[in-house]
Amino acid sequence: MTHLVDLVADLGEGFGAYAMGDDEALLDVVTSANIACGFHAGDPRTMDATIRSCAQRGISAGAHPSFPDLAGFGRRAMELTPREVRTDVLYQIGALQAFAVAHGIRVNHVAPHGKLGNLVATRPDYAGAVADAVACVDPSLIVLAQDGELAEAARARGLAVGIVGIADRAYADDGTLVPRTQPGAVIHDAAEIAERTVRMVTEGVIRSVGGKVVPVECDTVLLHGDTPDAVALAHRVRDELLSAGVAIAPLPEVLRRKAGA
Amino acid sequence: MTHLVDLVADLGEGFGAYAMGDDEALLDVVTSANIACGFHAGDPRTMDATIRSCAQRGISAGAHPSFPDLAGFGRRAMELTPREVRTDVLYQIGALQAFAVAHGIRVNHVAPHGKLGNLVATRPDYAGAVADAVACVDPSLIVLAQDGELAEAARARGLAVGIVGIADRAYADDGTLVPRTQPGAVIHDAAEIAERTVRMVTEGVIRSVGGKVVPVECDTVLLHGDTPDAVALAHRVRDELLSAGVAIAPLPEVLRRKAGA
Amino acid sequence: MTHLVDLVADLGEGFGAYAMGDDEALLDVVTSANIACGFHAGDPRTMDATIRSCAQRGISAGAHPSFPDLAGFGRRAMELTPREVRTDVLYQIGALQAFAVAHGIRVNHVAPHGKLGNLVATRPDYAGAVADAVACVDPSLIVLAQDGELAEAARARGLAVGIVGIADRAYADDGTLVPRTQPGAVIHDAAEIAERTVRMVTEGVIRSVGGKVVPVECDTVLLHGDTPDAVALAHRVRDELLSAGVAIAPLPEVLRRKAGA
Amino acid sequence: MTHLVDLVADLGEGFGAYAMGDDEALLDVVTSANIACGFHAGDPRTMDATIRSCAQRGISAGAHPSFPDLAGFGRRAMELTPREVRTDVLYQIGALQAFAVAHGIRVNHVAPHGKLGNLVATRPDYAGAVADAVACVDPSLIVLAQDGELAEAARARGLAVGIVGIADRAYADDGTLVPRTQPGAVIHDAAEIAERTVRMVTEGVIRSVGGKVVPVECDTVLLHGDTPDAVALAHRVRDELLSAGVAIAPLPEVLRRKAGA
Repeated sequence: MTHLVDLVADLGEGFGAYAMGDDEALLDVVTSANIACGFHAGDPRTMDATIRSCAQRGISAGAHPSFPDLAGFGRRAMELTPREVRTDVLYQIGALQAFAVAHGIRVNHVAPHGKLGNLVATRPDYAGAVADAVACVDPSLIVLAQDGELAEAARARGLAVGIVGIADRAYADDGTLVPRTQPGAVIHDAAEIAERTVRMVTEGVIRSVGGKVVPVECDTVLLHGDTPDAVALAHRVRDELLSAGVAIAPLPEVLRRKAGA
Repeated sequence: MTHLVDLVADLGEGFGAYAMGDDEALLDVVTSANIACGFHAGDPRTMDATIRSCAQRGISAGAHPSFPDLAGFGRRAMELTPREVRTDVLYQIGALQAFAVAHGIRVNHVAPHGKLGNLVATRPDYAGAVADAVACVDPSLIVLAQDGELAEAARARGLAVGIVGIADRAYADDGTLVPRTQPGAVIHDAAEIAERTVRMVTEGVIRSVGGKVVPVECDTVLLHGDTPDAVALAHRVRDELLSAGVAIAPLPEVLRRKAGA
Repeated sequence: MTHLVDLVADLGEGFGAYAMGDDEALLDVVTSANIACGFHAGDPRTMDATIRSCAQRGISAGAHPSFPDLAGFGRRAMELTPREVRTDVLYQIGALQAFAVAHGIRVNHVAPHGKLGNLVATRPDYAGAVADAVACVDPSLIVLAQDGELAEAARARGLAVGIVGIADRAYADDGTLVPRTQPGAVIHDAAEIAERTVRMVTEGVIRSVGGKVVPVECDTVLLHGDTPDAVALAHRVRDELLSAGVAIAPLPEVLRRKAGA
Repeated sequence: MTHLVDLVADLGEGFGAYAMGDDEALLDVVTSANIACGFHAGDPRTMDATIRSCAQRGISAGAHPSFPDLAGFGRRAMELTPREVRTDVLYQIGALQAFAVAHGIRVNHVAPHGKLGNLVATRPDYAGAVADAVACVDPSLIVLAQDGELAEAARARGLAVGIVGIADRAYADDGTLVPRTQPGAVIHDAAEIAERTVRMVTEGVIRSVGGKVVPVECDTVLLHGDTPDAVALAHRVRDELLSAGVAIAPLPEVLRRKAGA
């Protein structure tokens, strides 16, 4: 059986006159996009243009909802009620859906951004709120997550889950990510990142910081585009996956084929 | 044939800890709601609660998009490009649609708010931008307008138009509203407002400031709820319409039945 | 010796078209004002009008800086760096100072609002950041606080501290406030609140929830104006203080006279 | 007599995670800075860092207030009342002053940004509102302007005015700028721009689009830093001014010496 994986990146994170990352370069690499919805980045023009690019290139569009914190780019924790999280996420998904409809495509997945994305992995209240928002606006939406509370909350509501593999991050022996605050948490060597990605996708394992070979799921690989090096690395990861015989396809197709296998 | 009209009011115009108007009182009177979408008023919690109220009471929900101006409550002119107007309106409609879907109803109409609502009556560029947004996100949406550029732009795109009658405003001999800056533009006498409304709905005419009886369309009557007097007036208008044998129904039904007639 | 106390309330917490509380009624009662600076409430027009009222009536003006969270009215915790807290507070103090200068008065104190106000009592990092902001923009500013980290951080930087007595809140045996989450934390009986205030000011003690008479400092009494009852209570507290022979004066005068005593 | 001029650029126009222009490169060139104050750009961290750079390098700091329009970078016209303009400008000046005080310097000038900057040249109401704000917060502030309504309103209130020369823009025969919408409005040739600047400063004239030699005042030359070419051009302009024997000094010194001459 051919191995199959999606390549995803955060796109449309500019705001007004401000640019962020090299969207044009990433559009040549990815098969899915996490698109900012206005709360940490992404004004309506940026959302419109990013969705249009996705429509033109057959890239699967996803919502990238955030805490309401433009000044902090959604990277700062906020203590919200579950109702506040749920309604903020609903608002953002709906706003992006309008642009998708306008360009003849659908929003296919939801991937919480930044600090909200971190917290839903460990906080059941935030995870449940995000999953509730997704379930009530469109139960066919895929929830992008790492293993953790959000994945669990999504599955409990019957939602499809796409597990994100993060190639440039160290994993602990239990298959969770090593926190960024610890030394060695981020891997910088391009060859090593590409090799880890291929192994994660083709063998379903990754070598942990403790040297163990641990099983790890991966429906989609998260790529970055914030520096020229990051874009080059994204291309390299894609090329080595193709060389290893991996098929690259948008997330909905990856999940469909895996479900059918 | 029974005369038929919708009663509409601006609802959900609070923001966070702030309240605006007496939504609870108006929910007993109206059959349609123009719901703020976050740009001049209406945070996600307010939107959620307002849509829920509409769902529970069978009130038809409409989007009330605005210029992005919370500090000015959307009442200040902004010079935007048509693309900016179109994408701002798309964003707001989509955000509200998410709450409608979550509560099992639909957004049925779009009524631009405040200064944007004023300008679309006379500026073809803004009118076209709003109509474009509506047409590409959901061509079954009804555009609420007075006679003017927006009504024309909407019809040119095949969109249904609901004409708003404004009972407490004076009309000129040509059927347009007397500008607020002119004396006598706003009518304050409750009996007169109620009487004018009934005549507008049952006879299709209104007495102009010049004393002429001018024809005027009216699919829906705009009510206010910003003061206790306004709420009392809203009830009185409703009661006198019913006494005159007018049937009151949500906007989509009004248009459907008129189209069928 | 005559007892002396300041009466303070949160003022200027409207935003744009939105009102909050009954500022007009409170202006007749208080000798100091905590004025919102735009981050949780208080647009430039509201700030201008509130400072003008203070100037006209001889009310001492204070800044009421907040987390940047208009949708949450500054009541939600945010995880900021000390630098973010310091610079956000600096920004807000400066903005208010401009209006004070424009109306010929000074900003005399700083009182963190809402959740920031809660957290500076227990978090040394936030307390230090607020005190740093105050110290570097104007070391003659008084820091309003309850006993806790902020009071300590302010004193450590040589800043004057005004201790707030909260008449409608229960105190624990150690002189700290009973958390709002506990039963009996908020006192609703007007007679009891007025009596407690007088005793706090004239005897320097308060009866704790445990029935102990605990010493408690009080340079200023915090009053509320969010309901008609609250305004009536504010008047009653003021009247009973005056009946008990307490002199009521703006905060800078209270601290000056206490320091001179 | 030695000719004297200030070199000024817009600085601190990032926001949160977003960068704008090459501030570091411009800090080596300019003697004054127009610093964004949060309404079109410039969060409190950016303001703090920019003011600190100015303090360290002896660059004269100025406020760069804008319409409240982050999404539009202050480039879109808004229809505000004079009171709204005045209070918005007061707020922004005050916020920046706090950072200046914190770093031991002063805000020395005010230069309206973007569309507000354009409109104050021709609209007496906006010009008067800006001049009122400056006059009431600090009458020693210099108003940066081209010839026009703002310069006039400032002088009428006894404020010092610094006239900006714009080296890369074409001038009409009457000494006003050719509108950007007309062909040839922007000059792109570096040699020509540098030559025009030197002549403007040393001879007080510029060659108009019509070929006339028209008199033009110039206390400060506006430089850009939004592209590598712009930074190179800024250096070139500076170098050619120095080669021509022009002394370059911060704006307050330029005005002081000219007044003394």
